[in-house]
Amino acid sequence: VARAADVDDLVARAQNGEPRAVARLISLVEDESPALRQVAALLAPLAGKAHVVGLTGAPGVGKSTTTSALVTAYRAVGRRVAVLAVDPSSPFTGGALLGDRVRMQEHATDPGVFIRSMATRGHLGGLAAAAPQAIRVLEAAGADVVLVETVGVGQSEVEVAGLADTTVVLLAPGMGDAIQAAKAGILEIGDVFCVNKADRDGADSTARELRNMIALGREGNGDPAGWKPPIVKTVASKVEGIDQLMGALESHREFLTADGLTARRRKRAAAEIEALAIAVIRGGFTTPHRAGQLDELAGQVVAGQLDPYSAADRLLG
Amino acid sequence: VARAADVDDLVARAQNGEPRAVARLISLVEDESPALRQVAALLAPLAGKAHVVGLTGAPGVGKSTTTSALVTAYRAVGRRVAVLAVDPSSPFTGGALLGDRVRMQEHATDPGVFIRSMATRGHLGGLAAAAPQAIRVLEAAGADVVLVETVGVGQSEVEVAGLADTTVVLLAPGMGDAIQAAKAGILEIGDVFCVNKADRDGADSTARELRNMIALGREGNGDPAGWKPPIVKTVASKVEGIDQLMGALESHREFLTADGLTARRRKRAAAEIEALAIAVIRGGFTTPHRAGQLDELAGQVVAGQLDPYSAADRLLG
Repeated sequence: VARAADVDDLVARAQNGEPRAVARLISLVEDESPALRQVAALLAPLAGKAHVVGLTGAPGVGKSTTTSALVTAYRAVGRRVAVLAVDPSSPFTGGALLGDRVRMQEHATDPGVFIRSMATRGHLGGLAAAAPQAIRVLEAAGADVVLVETVGVGQSEVEVAGLADTTVVLLAPGMGDAIQAAKAGILEIGDVFCVNKADRDGADSTARELRNMIALGREGNGDPAGWKPPIVKTVASKVEGIDQLMGALESHREFLTADGLTARRRKRAAAEIEALAIAVIRGGFTTPHRAGQLDELAGQVVAGQLDPYSAADRLLG
Repeated sequence: VARAADVDDLVARAQNGEPRAVARLISLVEDESPALRQVAALLAPLAGKAHVVGLTGAPGVGKSTTTSALVTAYRAVGRRVAVLAVDPSSPFTGGALLGDRVRMQEHATDPGVFIRSMATRGHLGGLAAAAPQAIRVLEAAGADVVLVETVGVGQSEVEVAGLADTTVVLLAPGMGDAIQAAKAGILEIGDVFCVNKADRDGADSTARELRNMIALGREGNGDPAGWKPPIVKTVASKVEGIDQLMGALESHREFLTADGLTARRRKRAAAEIEALAIAVIRGGFTTPHRAGQLDELAGQVVAGQLDPYSAADRLLG
């Protein structure tokens, strides 16, 4: 268990950009250390300085490859970059799969890059609460850009939009086409669209289809006036189109005036606070007494003696 | 608004298998009608009679086509079948996409089939609470089998396992391969695996890879002793392998002894009760006073004056 003085020291060292201190702080967040609240209190005034970019899309579209190529592009213009690869909701396997880490190896020796996988399984408040806290650690450590990539699918597909200033939705021709993206509910969350693997057949028709569906889906959705989500075609594995993608991200960041950015972040903070509050309440259900009561009520529901609404009332009452 | 006497009548008519009464009751659930609690109370003793089968898998694997083919297979052996197509978590577009309904048209005139799309967007307690209630309606109406299919991706991918007695995980060669399924956390939830589009290249290797990953992933996962999840290859669009798939579902249902089935359902009911209880509390956050307080706290977090954990305490306290 980290002591209070240790935490002070860790935050100070993270502010100096020491990778081990950054890693340790994120572990404290991830593991829900008892020191979490102290970490959070120390980080609060240090956050809000980076451009937080979320990358989302179906498995196989090339999120990791694109993220890695973006890191190179941002480094080439002198930005300090942090990557947070969030392993979402698999309730069974903790930790990110190795493949994604391997693809990031090329940046392993660059002191201007910090890469971290994070499991949010079972975290108090889930992704909605754990990831923002990790982002604050990375901001405190001086990242100019934080790329938040979700590993795999899950609720995180949509949730990642709630974490980011700018959300990139990735598609690839032929596999996760525009209609599937629409089904997944991720068309509406994109500030920037990226058709990756654009050297494959069907890239143009995917982009065209996408453009139509975006126009359709966004009618009356209250987009900030004037922002039309661009569609960028990339071949991340060959570093094609990546500068254009970075350019689109920068344009969106510039488009978000100070007011627009604050409004997004305020909404984000509200969701985070609510997730934490609900987690506190949910935690109350796991005490032995309440857990026993819940199991008893569940037995009555299965037996048809009680309906679940009445059972919920009894659990709360 | 449905009156109390109307609801009594609706439930009685649904028990007689009248499709309009069934549809109306599910609408009451979906719309969170004030009559919901009365509906729930009336349904409680009528539920638990059907085999609830969940179908999950990445977009594009052919869930709807497989579901439709399964309906035909179950009808051929005289079962009454209900399909509940759950549109998960898109916070933007209510209602299921048309395409899925179209594929089900062939069953539209069969009185032994009831098909219903259901949006759970914004539902009190989400999918976890809305879908079980709809399943009870279908059971009350005399369904022998309820096929629960999720439309698109989202947290529902994993959540659907919590709704079903038997969960089918669908994959297709080359698009949502076994590694991607592992990433999505859906390998562990399958009682039966289905490699659909098995006439495509790579079907055998997908099945092989899947078999290896299942063996790997399930070690020590507390599976009911003796059940080895079978892998069935299908070409649903050509109705190939569907009888084998149905056979695997039946085998799993038989494998679940009365005790095993009750244990699964009890766990499911506990999750449902908890989701409803949390929804009641979350509802409390939306009163004008509390919503204003939350927004105020979020502003302080964005400004770096307060950390989110302390903000959650203040919201609750």
